Amino acid sequence: MTTGILFAATDVRWAEYEAPLRAALDTTGLPYALATDLPPETVDYIVYAPNSSLQDFGPFPRLKAVLSLWAGVEGVVGNATLTVPLTRMVDAEGLTQGMVEYVTGHVLRHHLAMDTHIVNPRHEWTPIAPPLAADRPVTVLGLGTLGLACAQMLRTIGFPVTGWSRTAKSAEGIRCLSGAAGLLPALNGAQIVVLLLPDTPQTRCVLDAETLAALPRGAVIVNPGRGPLIDDAALLDALDSGQIGHATLDVFRQEPLPQGHPFWAHPQVTVTPHIASETRVASASRVIAENIRRGEVGLPLLHRVDRAAGY
Amino acid sequence: MTTGILFAATDVRWAEYEAPLRAALDTTGLPYALATDLPPETVDYIVYAPNSSLQDFGPFPRLKAVLSLWAGVEGVVGNATLTVPLTRMVDAEGLTQGMVEYVTGHVLRHHLAMDTHIVNPRHEWTPIAPPLAADRPVTVLGLGTLGLACAQMLRTIGFPVTGWSRTAKSAEGIRCLSGAAGLLPALNGAQIVVLLLPDTPQTRCVLDAETLAALPRGAVIVNPGRGPLIDDAALLDALDSGQIGHATLDVFRQEPLPQGHPFWAHPQVTVTPHIASETRVASASRVIAENIRRGEVGLPLLHRVDRAAGY
Repeated sequence: MTTGILFAATDVRWAEYEAPLRAALDTTGLPYALATDLPPETVDYIVYAPNSSLQDFGPFPRLKAVLSLWAGVEGVVGNATLTVPLTRMVDAEGLTQGMVEYVTGHVLRHHLAMDTHIVNPRHEWTPIAPPLAADRPVTVLGLGTLGLACAQMLRTIGFPVTGWSRTAKSAEGIRCLSGAAGLLPALNGAQIVVLLLPDTPQTRCVLDAETLAALPRGAVIVNPGRGPLIDDAALLDALDSGQIGHATLDVFRQEPLPQGHPFWAHPQVTVTPHIASETRVASASRVIAENIRRGEVGLPLLHRVDRAAGY
Repeated sequence: MTTGILFAATDVRWAEYEAPLRAALDTTGLPYALATDLPPETVDYIVYAPNSSLQDFGPFPRLKAVLSLWAGVEGVVGNATLTVPLTRMVDAEGLTQGMVEYVTGHVLRHHLAMDTHIVNPRHEWTPIAPPLAADRPVTVLGLGTLGLACAQMLRTIGFPVTGWSRTAKSAEGIRCLSGAAGLLPALNGAQIVVLLLPDTPQTRCVLDAETLAALPRGAVIVNPGRGPLIDDAALLDALDSGQIGHATLDVFRQEPLPQGHPFWAHPQVTVTPHIASETRVASASRVIAENIRRGEVGLPLLHRVDRAAGY
């Protein structure tokens, strides 16, 4: 029987994905129908972006799973009409590698104090070498696929890395702390903090006035995770007081970051436009096709979302 | 018997080194006397900077070795009064690791186009993700200790790396080219070029109008090696024409780089003040202490200078 695959995302995404997705599906050997419009009773899988106009999963009697093209599923996980398994995109090649490059690059940028040389209008020659990475403790909040990959690369470069996660984890060469009791110890002494937690009620404003105050003076924040992880007003206060030396932010409560938002003009804030990690079409298509193959032969789906946890 | 250690360098160095050197010596368990002034007949080792006022090694009857704080020993190797072993500073932890951090950081900076976000006066939000490192070929000119360590770290991060050296070398995962015939092939297709060659008559102006033209348009140069490796006028021409997209330079024919030098004001040049690789006091102190320990237990000294070769 033909496997019905409905592509529910923007037209821009369809234009990008149609060819690589067909190429990936062809390798499974399954007979399939892939389209942006299919009779609901023929749909087995929905390839989905949470900003799709499709918000009611009720009319699909044969639906087996919803396969998100996005890693962040907070826009769909609470949808009451969604009763079948939901998977999130974990595109190791594109998302994880891209994130590792962004995080490694920006941590090294702050470690090496590059900005003082990139913008040096008075042409000052002050030959002060930075400490070695071994003397620059870095903490990564979140030890999921992305956080762990970044922590390991930072460790490989030479930084002493502490990782913090909600539930206890362990990783070679990484000092792992967890739970509410582990958060302040994870922040104490961290000169650079990288945020790679999911956006859940428990993680919202994980950096607030109290936790920012637990960092050593002048610490740097790098947030390529989720905007709501930070209490923006508390961060601005901490930047103004010098408690936080710099913040490099890739994600925001509202995107694009509105003109006039104080982050834009703050001299100690760098805004990057949500580019830290982006699904690459070719590798993401292979992930989707693999999950459809698994669904059809009865194997567990990869990267299935735990609805209760929210990710 | 107490080991006598005379510290013969500038007062500035003594202020920097005294505490870390004592800390490193304490770990050896040797009884020692460390000072900038000791009775000559009690001196076993001289910790030495070639710009020290001490230039006559004759009056030290018990002297076992002179341990240079500098990597470059051309200012002492020819001293006729020096008849005991001489070691040079090879601070792998400081020099090599520092260089790896600088090179990795600046290659990632250019790869990720960070400068467009660090300096973004119009607050533009243009979410274009860079390619993955796998699609950004990098070439390292020079495969000595520093070049090889940098090439390997860039490879670990995911860049396809070509290395070029005067004589043929090989390194796992690195495409190795060599000799005059290999230079243009090493530059063809390199989007980022890192210069880590020594300064010799053969390497002077290895980047000139001809070799710069062999790079793809918009290529980036990172030079933490030696100033004379680049024909400055040819580089400025290539920057002005757009053939070279950016140059990040840490070393210059004249240092400090004179005010008024066109590199300072060029919008596509970043000047860093010779900080890419520097002996770090803590790790250099450990190297000195280890050599004194070796001398006392009769092991061969590390990094002993071959007087005939001059290094």
